[in-house]
Amino acid sequence: MEKKEKLNWTKKHLLGIEALSKEEILTILHQSTAFKSVLKRSIPKVPPLRGKTIAMLFCEPSTRTRSSFELAAKRLSADTLSVATSTSSFLKGETLKDTARNIEAMKVEMIVMRHGCSGAPHFLSQCVNASVINAGDGSHEHPTQALLDVFTIKEKVKKIEGLKVSIIGDIAHSRVARSNIFALTKLGAKVTVCGPKTLLPVGIEKTGAKVTSDLKEALEGADAINVLRIQLERQKEALFPTIREYTRTFGINAEVLRKYAKKEVLILHPGPINRGVELSQDVADSEFSVILDQVTNGVAVRMAVLFLLSLKK
Amino acid sequence: MEKKEKLNWTKKHLLGIEALSKEEILTILHQSTAFKSVLKRSIPKVPPLRGKTIAMLFCEPSTRTRSSFELAAKRLSADTLSVATSTSSFLKGETLKDTARNIEAMKVEMIVMRHGCSGAPHFLSQCVNASVINAGDGSHEHPTQALLDVFTIKEKVKKIEGLKVSIIGDIAHSRVARSNIFALTKLGAKVTVCGPKTLLPVGIEKTGAKVTSDLKEALEGADAINVLRIQLERQKEALFPTIREYTRTFGINAEVLRKYAKKEVLILHPGPINRGVELSQDVADSEFSVILDQVTNGVAVRMAVLFLLSLKK
Amino acid sequence: MEKKEKLNWTKKHLLGIEALSKEEILTILHQSTAFKSVLKRSIPKVPPLRGKTIAMLFCEPSTRTRSSFELAAKRLSADTLSVATSTSSFLKGETLKDTARNIEAMKVEMIVMRHGCSGAPHFLSQCVNASVINAGDGSHEHPTQALLDVFTIKEKVKKIEGLKVSIIGDIAHSRVARSNIFALTKLGAKVTVCGPKTLLPVGIEKTGAKVTSDLKEALEGADAINVLRIQLERQKEALFPTIREYTRTFGINAEVLRKYAKKEVLILHPGPINRGVELSQDVADSEFSVILDQVTNGVAVRMAVLFLLSLKK
Repeated sequence: MEKKEKLNWTKKHLLGIEALSKEEILTILHQSTAFKSVLKRSIPKVPPLRGKTIAMLFCEPSTRTRSSFELAAKRLSADTLSVATSTSSFLKGETLKDTARNIEAMKVEMIVMRHGCSGAPHFLSQCVNASVINAGDGSHEHPTQALLDVFTIKEKVKKIEGLKVSIIGDIAHSRVARSNIFALTKLGAKVTVCGPKTLLPVGIEKTGAKVTSDLKEALEGADAINVLRIQLERQKEALFPTIREYTRTFGINAEVLRKYAKKEVLILHPGPINRGVELSQDVADSEFSVILDQVTNGVAVRMAVLFLLSLKK
Repeated sequence: MEKKEKLNWTKKHLLGIEALSKEEILTILHQSTAFKSVLKRSIPKVPPLRGKTIAMLFCEPSTRTRSSFELAAKRLSADTLSVATSTSSFLKGETLKDTARNIEAMKVEMIVMRHGCSGAPHFLSQCVNASVINAGDGSHEHPTQALLDVFTIKEKVKKIEGLKVSIIGDIAHSRVARSNIFALTKLGAKVTVCGPKTLLPVGIEKTGAKVTSDLKEALEGADAINVLRIQLERQKEALFPTIREYTRTFGINAEVLRKYAKKEVLILHPGPINRGVELSQDVADSEFSVILDQVTNGVAVRMAVLFLLSLKK
Repeated sequence: MEKKEKLNWTKKHLLGIEALSKEEILTILHQSTAFKSVLKRSIPKVPPLRGKTIAMLFCEPSTRTRSSFELAAKRLSADTLSVATSTSSFLKGETLKDTARNIEAMKVEMIVMRHGCSGAPHFLSQCVNASVINAGDGSHEHPTQALLDVFTIKEKVKKIEGLKVSIIGDIAHSRVARSNIFALTKLGAKVTVCGPKTLLPVGIEKTGAKVTSDLKEALEGADAINVLRIQLERQKEALFPTIREYTRTFGINAEVLRKYAKKEVLILHPGPINRGVELSQDVADSEFSVILDQVTNGVAVRMAVLFLLSLKK
């Protein structure tokens, strides 16, 4: 682990990638590399957060991200406390502000929050002294997902600067897409977002991302493709005609990759995969898929985030 | 922390305040002060319950009290085990006695129990060797809530003896009210309970509490006011006419406090607050509100209870 | 605890009793005795799994077995991580293989799995590097239950070889029955299974067990009787006429024991008991009932299993 002095970290909360500088992102990635090597030890546990309690405030269902954060916390010797779940009565009849102040009053050191409303973790961070980590808020940001995506690409290609990375799917409703665009752009990658016109948000080009509904354009020359999960419930909202139609036009399979993409293109997916919908069986399991590396790196990246934020209390 | 010898603690279970002596209550409060200072350390964790397991047997939904007990357990280095929740199948097709004996057979050291039936923790304590802590049973007692309420008042006013403390709301169905009456009376406070006649239990004056349905009488000269949460479902049972009517007659707001109460009266509430119903927005957030101190003190008081009970095995 | 060298343990997974040798079963029982003495210490915790994480993947509801495994893990100083529950969204829209690979990618050391499908833990073990422990799969096996049953009988009678053990109830759908038959037979006991003809699986006699629908035959000369829980939902499937009829014909009560059984016969039950259905009140609480010993021994046996599997990584 890096010495505290050298790290030069000043942030107390991780609310989104948009507010991070390139240097801060690189510090997190650097620290993640250190923790990834810890995870390979026979006793993959280090003491920096011993005696600290990290509250898990998951107001939307999530086993995947919650498990990853819990594992990261335990690998750092922290205790975790589940203060709310999507099925809990904690939030009933109580404003978010009251919830925030109650958690604050219990004197936990950090709060990992997932919430259906964009901006909820930002609001929480203004009410509490604890560090707040955004584990996904509405359609806004999912910063640790973007960090683990970028870490995974960098680990494989050795750089981010100058790469072409394409994000395919429901860009409009995706906090993963937004956080990825910020992270990749700040590190010098060229980002293309691609999906049905109804799933492309107005004004997204202001982020510096190129926007297209032509899969060929997105795939051509791409070094990495981040395939988003199709939320099947969006179809009911009539944002795309049928699943079959979506798969035919935007589904990533061996054929479209062979026709349009570079041979060694990386395939990312935030999981869980709808196999045969946004991603075909063979591509999900191909040698170019780094989907399971993303899961492994997620623990290391979240350890890095928890560790760095704990330096600034 | 106090030495074991000096503490002179003999109880094995905490089932209610009614069975505690004044000296025992004072010992818990004294120990709570010691643990409150632990919670201010940079590593707020102490080792007395290392290696011990505390089972959480919550047969009614509760995130707030459960979180506070879990945090208290972790701050004492205990492990916690969730053996049942309100949604668990643990209790199905099984008598409470069988549940008790099963938990006992797993050899946990302590059991924190919340149950919808009055007396359930008492019954549990007769079936097991483990220490049993009542975290709220039916309309009977909620001893740790009363202890943290009393601790909070004492912390602010420096004494309990001779104070006038008024409890406002649904006294008939409130375990919080009952435990508070016992704790405050034993420590020499004068307690007044106040609410609609339908929510005042018959015979409550035998506890030594003064009973009234006149808010003015309850507020006049009070040093602290404990505002109970209105259980909105009681209205369906026709125990009070409308929420609006309740708020107009018994709601605590700046105006009634200015008209009737002492200037520096403390405002307590067990949470979660129905803002604008039993307590107005401005009073809940005023300088006289100690509602968040109650939450903070809850962890210290529960540490004290767990610690003291662990001395008597 | 035994030294690693002496233990001579080679298995990485515990998927069922069928694949274990007599020597392996004896090693687990031997190790369980050592851990049972640990559980009697004032600090009942040992360090062998410190820093290791054990994922709990319970895809069917279970508080009883899950609590026992969690307690065993904590007593060995391991961390536990609940990666899925029967109500979790983890498995939605995802194949078991993807779930397996995701857990694997998070780099946990062991996975305790309960699943409604026979063979699911076996499949999981082929996808992951982590050790897999079967905590009950469909109607296939529940190996730790059989091990704790055998341990409990051996503890009381001092041997297994040559004993007559009868298993009464729904043999066809019982993973407990199957695992018990394997364990008892391998250790030299004579097993009789007894139940309504509709609940006796075709070909079960190939396991070496004697099959009967005559309770008298099952009870006569038996050293231990393992009374299975009647799954009341089986009646809807018309596999037996009425509960009352079942109780009259196969229910174990003081009268049938007096008429047919040896005086000092042991009574086992995997819990939770339907009192008055498969087992009468008085027999469940009699001096011959070892049902609560089973619960206590369950923690020791699961500690032994987790510890032994951790030796082979």
